[in-house]
Amino acid sequence: MSIRIGMGVDFHQLTEGRDLWLGGVKIPHSKGALGHSDADVLLHAICDALLGAACLGDIGVHFPDTDNAFKNIDSKILLSKTAELIKTKGYSIINIDTSLCLQAPKIKPYIVSMQQTIAGILGLSENDISIKATTTEKMGFVGREEGLMAYATVLLQSL
Amino acid sequence: MSIRIGMGVDFHQLTEGRDLWLGGVKIPHSKGALGHSDADVLLHAICDALLGAACLGDIGVHFPDTDNAFKNIDSKILLSKTAELIKTKGYSIINIDTSLCLQAPKIKPYIVSMQQTIAGILGLSENDISIKATTTEKMGFVGREEGLMAYATVLLQSL
Amino acid sequence: MSIRIGMGVDFHQLTEGRDLWLGGVKIPHSKGALGHSDADVLLHAICDALLGAACLGDIGVHFPDTDNAFKNIDSKILLSKTAELIKTKGYSIINIDTSLCLQAPKIKPYIVSMQQTIAGILGLSENDISIKATTTEKMGFVGREEGLMAYATVLLQSL
Ligand SMILES: [Zn+2]
Ligand SMILES: [Zn+2]
Ligand SMILES: [Zn+2]
Repeated sequence: MSIRIGMGVDFHQLTEGRDLWLGGVKIPHSKGALGHSDADVLLHAICDALLGAACLGDIGVHFPDTDNAFKNIDSKILLSKTAELIKTKGYSIINIDTSLCLQAPKIKPYIVSMQQTIAGILGLSENDISIKATTTEKMGFVGREEGLMAYATVLLQSL
Repeated sequence: MSIRIGMGVDFHQLTEGRDLWLGGVKIPHSKGALGHSDADVLLHAICDALLGAACLGDIGVHFPDTDNAFKNIDSKILLSKTAELIKTKGYSIINIDTSLCLQAPKIKPYIVSMQQTIAGILGLSENDISIKATTTEKMGFVGREEGLMAYATVLLQSL
Repeated sequence: MSIRIGMGVDFHQLTEGRDLWLGGVKIPHSKGALGHSDADVLLHAICDALLGAACLGDIGVHFPDTDNAFKNIDSKILLSKTAELIKTKGYSIINIDTSLCLQAPKIKPYIVSMQQTIAGILGLSENDISIKATTTEKMGFVGREEGLMAYATVLLQSL
């Protein structure tokens, strides 16, 4: 068995008039994330971590924001496509750990739902999908609620 | 044996009139980190990485900043409690690598002491606790010395 | 076999009148990164990740920016020296995954060249060196093109 590491980071602006999708779940909030797709910062970070661990480029290579096919697309579809890519290369996922950085809203009530959603897409147990959250203590663009960011780390194994 | 990955990130404001605790060590400085606990950004990032790898939620779930029990608490106690939680779930720590991002002061003279402190709490060798430091080259809230941040990554194994 | 994790993060200001070196490759751009060495943020993050995984301190310990020996030095030399240090301690590299955060320019045309350069220095396959890139969606010092940052994660093994 061989093991590989990957990490991803993603950023999106927050703006009024958009839905807020995080971890494949729609979160009630006064602002949503701006982007070509549904701008799900957590799923994007996970996609990038998976692609990076498999050395398959990044999310921008596979799902370019200049391609109308991905306009307003549900990022759960991007995660599903990413899972296919790494499986095709012979890898399976050991576990994923993530950190969401946002000042508001509180996402704790939605964590289990996000874990279930992501685990379902990837064919994993919820115990293999960790989602953590932190504010930036009101500092920077995250602290001013102008945007949000997410980190993801993964381990893959090949048989 | 199975292996799992975790990562943590934490942020705190710097302010006059507080002590600066980093890696369980009190650092002489004109400012300290603001927070409900002693605001030790390095130990918090390590706690979050450990909890994430074990899929046990995050530091805010276990030690909420709305709970008076954790008011001004020594974060070494939080790290010790976190170590118990992951041990109870059947995991042991392989190694931890961390990066402190702060503009000042220089923390190099305190690194060995931090390693000894953390290794002692976790029952590990100092060679399994890496602490690195960098400035942000005067950019952003870290560069303006308004705050500091820390990253931690860990590998766990279960028997 | 034992496995170890490491991660690195690095930051540099962008300024006119400097070359932009990323991943050991010179990128045509109106600005370059400011630093004591050639300020290659990607190679520095990789060095720090390798040193951290091996618990050998950080890049500032081994290649201090107060040492004239490293003035304007090609960071490929620093990466090569770092590789020697971890090899001497008995470690070899499993894989490296990185994320470059910069608003401009587009680095996609240079990624394969960076992978080849880094793989050559480290004696690895290009498939073991992943380089991803993202903007910060115009937010913060990276978004304002005042600077750039890079993350790297690595797995090491010892025989
Ligand atoms: Zn995104
Ligand atoms: Zn904290
Ligand atoms: Zn640097």
